[in-house]
Amino acid sequence: MRRQEFEVSEKAECEAFLREKNDGVLTFIGGEDGWPRAVPLNYVYLDDAVYFHGSKQGEKMNGLAADPRAEFVAYEAHAFIPSHFSDPYLACPATVFFRSVRIRGTVEQVEDAAEKAAALGALMANMQPEGGHAPIDAADPKYTSSLRGVSVLRLDAAKMTGKFKFGQNLSAKRREQVLHGLANRDRPGDADTANRVREHAPEIDRST
Amino acid sequence: MRRQEFEVSEKAECEAFLREKNDGVLTFIGGEDGWPRAVPLNYVYLDDAVYFHGSKQGEKMNGLAADPRAEFVAYEAHAFIPSHFSDPYLACPATVFFRSVRIRGTVEQVEDAAEKAAALGALMANMQPEGGHAPIDAADPKYTSSLRGVSVLRLDAAKMTGKFKFGQNLSAKRREQVLHGLANRDRPGDADTANRVREHAPEIDRST
Repeated sequence: MRRQEFEVSEKAECEAFLREKNDGVLTFIGGEDGWPRAVPLNYVYLDDAVYFHGSKQGEKMNGLAADPRAEFVAYEAHAFIPSHFSDPYLACPATVFFRSVRIRGTVEQVEDAAEKAAALGALMANMQPEGGHAPIDAADPKYTSSLRGVSVLRLDAAKMTGKFKFGQNLSAKRREQVLHGLANRDRPGDADTANRVREHAPEIDRST
Repeated sequence: MRRQEFEVSEKAECEAFLREKNDGVLTFIGGEDGWPRAVPLNYVYLDDAVYFHGSKQGEKMNGLAADPRAEFVAYEAHAFIPSHFSDPYLACPATVFFRSVRIRGTVEQVEDAAEKAAALGALMANMQPEGGHAPIDAADPKYTSSLRGVSVLRLDAAKMTGKFKFGQNLSAKRREQVLHGLANRDRPGDADTANRVREHAPEIDRST
């Protein structure tokens, strides 16, 4: 990536984002035609890996069986920053402040029933924290056939890149204009975005 | 895709979704290593094509210059449907109701200044409908160098597939349980999701 100022080198920060989110897009080179595929899905990040589930047949299974190389990305748009926050004429400063994490690695099908149950249990804990279901347990006969029927995939992270864009490239003056614009607009999320802008501001600007 | 009941055959419905959204993930096979890449970005859908912009150097330009085949996906999660809406024991019915549209095609760099300006203008109109900037015009000297400096990419849609999942596969009884759960929960978006569930219900259930 060209804009190194937006890259996040802290693995912990990327992992915190991956734990917060539950959907993203899995990319792989599918099947015989060699075209790239973009499949949105839910996931859970567990033990340095991204787990997905799906049906035993179909595009994901076929494509990844032929070529297990994949990239997964989770993305969150935090705030649209209109150009008029900092420029009365040009449209160019318009942008979106966002967080994204990309993970490259190979995808394997999980065969072990206990690992499958653990991954699906973690996914449920993320998405349905209130519970309201029996624990997913490979030893529970009520789950046996479902666990056999579902496919669980594990993407082992070989490379992880975070991009958290909160105006790090702005001059101190432009940053203040953006913060002023966010405070005035005050949409849901704007105050949180302003905090992130302040947190991510380069050291050199903090003292001015 | 295996689950044909979720596929949307109406191009108009897919296009309406693409016009509503402004971000998605572009997938391509990047550069020399042959690994698939997943890049989140903003877009505008205009004249049967998806337009993006970005810097003239970097991963997208290099990868797509080497292999212009791409897939783009826009996705929106409408509501998480907890398992306990329809099952007191098993976690299996837990799901997400969503809309997604995938577009496959080849990506070309737009060289024509007027087409660049039109695409960027449409992007701005989508994201900043209140205006507050001078029209992006290739003849406006204040925009000339910016337009030259920015890269605009056009993905021409060769294939478009929509997947709108709102419980079409549920039995009439389960559908009623889900509608009841949504009405009780009443989170932002739940009423809208319930309407979509009703709209997408198969004909056979509407009469019961």
